[in-house]
Amino acid sequence: MNHRMIRYIIGSLIQMEAAMFLLPTITALIYKETVCIAAFMGTALFCVMAGHLLKGKKPEDVTIFSSEGYVSVAVCWVMMSICGAIPLYFSGYFPNPVDALFEIVSGFTTTGATILGDVEILPRSVLMWRSFSHWIGGMGVLVFMLALLPLAGASSMYLMRAESPGPSVGKLVPKVRSTAKILYSIYFFMTVLELILLLLAGCPLFDSVNLSFATAGTGGFGVLNSSAGEYNGIIQIILTVFMILFGVNFNVYFLIYTKNIKDAFKCEEARVYLGIIGASVLLITINTFPMFSGFWETLRHVAFQVASIITTTGFSTVDFELWPEFSRTILVILMFVGACAGSTGGGIKVSRIVIMAKTIVKELAVMNHPRSVRKTRFEGKTVEHEVLRSINVFLIAYLAVFVLSVLVISLDNLDGITNFTAVASTINNIGPGLSRVGPTQNFAVYSNLSKLVLTFDMLAGRLEIFPMLIMCTAGLKRKRWN
Amino acid sequence: MNHRMIRYIIGSLIQMEAAMFLLPTITALIYKETVCIAAFMGTALFCVMAGHLLKGKKPEDVTIFSSEGYVSVAVCWVMMSICGAIPLYFSGYFPNPVDALFEIVSGFTTTGATILGDVEILPRSVLMWRSFSHWIGGMGVLVFMLALLPLAGASSMYLMRAESPGPSVGKLVPKVRSTAKILYSIYFFMTVLELILLLLAGCPLFDSVNLSFATAGTGGFGVLNSSAGEYNGIIQIILTVFMILFGVNFNVYFLIYTKNIKDAFKCEEARVYLGIIGASVLLITINTFPMFSGFWETLRHVAFQVASIITTTGFSTVDFELWPEFSRTILVILMFVGACAGSTGGGIKVSRIVIMAKTIVKELAVMNHPRSVRKTRFEGKTVEHEVLRSINVFLIAYLAVFVLSVLVISLDNLDGITNFTAVASTINNIGPGLSRVGPTQNFAVYSNLSKLVLTFDMLAGRLEIFPMLIMCTAGLKRKRWN
Repeated sequence: MNHRMIRYIIGSLIQMEAAMFLLPTITALIYKETVCIAAFMGTALFCVMAGHLLKGKKPEDVTIFSSEGYVSVAVCWVMMSICGAIPLYFSGYFPNPVDALFEIVSGFTTTGATILGDVEILPRSVLMWRSFSHWIGGMGVLVFMLALLPLAGASSMYLMRAESPGPSVGKLVPKVRSTAKILYSIYFFMTVLELILLLLAGCPLFDSVNLSFATAGTGGFGVLNSSAGEYNGIIQIILTVFMILFGVNFNVYFLIYTKNIKDAFKCEEARVYLGIIGASVLLITINTFPMFSGFWETLRHVAFQVASIITTTGFSTVDFELWPEFSRTILVILMFVGACAGSTGGGIKVSRIVIMAKTIVKELAVMNHPRSVRKTRFEGKTVEHEVLRSINVFLIAYLAVFVLSVLVISLDNLDGITNFTAVASTINNIGPGLSRVGPTQNFAVYSNLSKLVLTFDMLAGRLEIFPMLIMCTAGLKRKRWN
Repeated sequence: MNHRMIRYIIGSLIQMEAAMFLLPTITALIYKETVCIAAFMGTALFCVMAGHLLKGKKPEDVTIFSSEGYVSVAVCWVMMSICGAIPLYFSGYFPNPVDALFEIVSGFTTTGATILGDVEILPRSVLMWRSFSHWIGGMGVLVFMLALLPLAGASSMYLMRAESPGPSVGKLVPKVRSTAKILYSIYFFMTVLELILLLLAGCPLFDSVNLSFATAGTGGFGVLNSSAGEYNGIIQIILTVFMILFGVNFNVYFLIYTKNIKDAFKCEEARVYLGIIGASVLLITINTFPMFSGFWETLRHVAFQVASIITTTGFSTVDFELWPEFSRTILVILMFVGACAGSTGGGIKVSRIVIMAKTIVKELAVMNHPRSVRKTRFEGKTVEHEVLRSINVFLIAYLAVFVLSVLVISLDNLDGITNFTAVASTINNIGPGLSRVGPTQNFAVYSNLSKLVLTFDMLAGRLEIFPMLIMCTAGLKRKRWN
C-alpha cells in the first residue's frame, strides 16, 4: 500500500474541512454566538495544523490502486467525521462525545438521524453546520476534492468509484477532474435554484439555506422540531419536488446539460424510480385518505413522505407512525429501495433493485425454456457478469452488516421494530425509523455501544459497505491473506 | 412439455395419498370417531378414483426435463394439499376451507403453524393426520414415490432435485431409486428409534407416535395446547436431541451407514450447524439465566427452543415471547438460517449461509490484494460458479417473495413484528413467530387472503421458491417466452 499517498489525501481533506468551517463561523459571528465562534475557529485551526502534519510534502509516487482507494475513502470519512464532531462537542450542546460523533456522521452521510429531542435550542451556527454537512457529504467530499486537486488519472478514478453510490460508476467525460467539476456545478446550481424558490414561497432566509442544503444532500436535518410540518403548503411542495429531483441519477442532468434531452428521458433507472414513487403515492393515498381532510391534502402529505423516504432524506410533515400498517410497510420497503445510483440519495439503489428483479425474470424464463439464451439488459445494454456479481456480493454483505447490527443493538432491550427500523434507517441513510425511533422520536434511547454501531452503519451505508469493511480488515488480516 | 407424463405423476401421487389415509382411518376406527372414519375413507376413495382418471394409461414417452420436474413437483404438492385438506374440512373442525388448506399445507411443508387456538378438542384421527403429514412432507413425498415407482433415470433426478432442499443435490448412489430407498430407510429407522426412546421416557403411546412424526419431519404440530411444555424433562431432552439430529444433512447418516465415520465427522455444513446451535444456546442461556431457576433448567429450555427454531420444527416448552430482545433477535436470525441442506428442516439452509459468508471473505481478500487469485471452497471442494449463481438467484427470489408477502398481509393492519415474523415463520417452515403469532398464539388473526399468501409462502419455502414461481408463470408467460 502507498501509505504516504493515503496520508497525503487524508491531510488534504482535513485542511479542506478547515475551510468548510468558514460557513458556520460566519453564521456564529452574525448571530454573536461566542462559544461557537471559538469552537469552530479553534477546530479549523486544529484541522489546518493536523492536516499539514499528516500531508508532509507531496509524495513522488502518487499512484494508488483500488484497495488503497477504498481504504483512503473510508479513513477520510472517519477522520472528517471526528474533526466535524469537535465543534459540536465544544459548543456544549453535545456533552457526550459519542453523541457528537453520531450527529455529525448522520450529517455527512446525509442520514439526518438525530440524538436530540429539541433542535430548536441549538445555536444557529450549529444548525448551519449540521445542514451544511449534508450538502458536503451528499455529492461526496472526495469528489469535491478531485474537482480542485489534480491527481494522477487512474488514482482519482479509484477514489471516485469508492465514494460514489451505485453498482457501476461511469465518468461523464474522459477526465475525472472535469466530471467532478460538472457534477458539483449541477449540484450547486440546483441547490441555489431551490433556495430562490423557497425564498419566493415565503420561507425565512436562514431556514431556506438550511432546507436547501438538507434537501440537496437528501439529508434531513431541519431547524424546527416539527421537521417540515410547520411550513406552508407551497414550501412543502417545493421540498417534495426537490427531494425527488436530488434522488435522480445525475447522469440525467448531465444529459440535459449537454442538450441530449431525448437520452435523458430514456434513462431506465429514473423512469423506474419515478414509477415506484407514483405507485407508492397512489397506494398510500388510497390507504390513508380517511385520515386527512380532502384529496389534495392527502396527496401533498403522502407525496412528501414518500419522496422523503425513498430519497432517504428523512423530513416529515406528519407522523407516519400513525398511518395504517399497509402504508407503513410500503414506507419500510421504500427505505430499502432508496434513490437512483449516482444521486445524493442512499439505500440499495433503484438500479440494483431493477437488475435483481430482471435476474429473477431471466431465471424463470430459462427454467421454463432451458434452450433459450438470454442476457439481463439494463439501460439498453447487456449487464456484464462482473456487475451482476458485484451486486450479489453487495446484497450479501449488506444483509450481513444489517443482521449483525440488529443483533448487537438488541442488547439494549428495545422492541424489534425499533431495532429493525433503526438499522434500516441508518444503513440506508434515511433518518427516522418507526416506533421508538419514529419521526417524532430520536436516537437518544440507545446506549453508546448501539450508537457506535449505528454510526458505523451510516458510514457503511453511505460508502456502500465495502470501503468500511476493507478498512476494518485491511490491517487485521494482513498476514493471513498474503 | 410432456403433459401426459406430468398428469401420470400427479395421478400416481394422489393414489399414493389415498393409501396414506389408512393411518388416520385406523386411528379413527380405534377411537370410534364416526365422522372422521367417513371423512378419511371417503376422501381415500375419492383420491383413488381421481388419481385413476388423471393417470390414464402409462404414457409411452416417460422423459421429463428440468422445467417439467419443477412444475410437476409444485403441482403435486398443491394437489396433495387440496386432497389432504378435504378430510379436515369434513371432520367439522375446520368449517372454513381456507383454514383446512392452511392447516394441511402447514403439515406437509413441516411448518407447524396452526389456525387453531385449541388443538386438544380435535379428534385423535385428525391429530394423527396432522402429525403424519409432517412425516410425509419432511423427506419429500416424491422422493417416497421414487423409491416405489420406477421412472426413467434422468427424469426422476429432476423430480428429486426440485423437491429436495439445498443448493446442490447429489445422489448418494448412482441410482436415484436406490438413493430414495436409502434415505427413507434412514428416516424410518431414526423415527422408530425416537419413538422407542419416548416410550421408555414415559410418554404415552399416542403422544409418542405424533411427536416422533412431528420431530422427524421437523414439523411442530403437537397434540397438546402447551406444545411440549407439559412433558417431563427427559422427554424434552429426547425431543431436543432428535430435532437437532433431523436437521443434520442426511449425507452424514449415509456416510455413517456405509461406515465412513471419518468422512461423516468432516462434513463442514454439519459442523457449522452444530457450532451455530452451540453459540446460540450459550448466548441465550447467559441472557435468559435470571428468568429460570438454575443453570440446568435454563440450559434445557434454551437448547429446546434453539433446536426447535433452527431446525424449523416449531415446538416450544416456554413462551420465548417473554425473553429479552437480544434472545428473541437471535431466534429470529436462526429462523432464517435454518437447518442443513439435505435434512428435513427448512430455512435458507446452513450451506447457503456458509457459502455466502465465504463469498464476502473472498471478496474482501481480493479487494485488499487484487493480484491474489482465490476460489470459494466448501466441503473441501471449489464451489462451482453455477452453484454460486443459483444461491444468489435464490436469495434474491426469496427476498422478493418475502417482501411482497409482508406487503400483502399488512393490509390486515396487524403490527409489523407480527407480519414480519408470520412470513418468516411460514416461508422458513417454522411454525410460531412473535407477537400476535407467537408460540402461545395462532394464525387465526389473519384474513383469508393473508392465509392464502402464507400458504403460498409455506409451499414456496418448502420447495425452495422456484418450483412455485415456475408453476405460476409457466402458463402465464408462455407466449412471450417462446
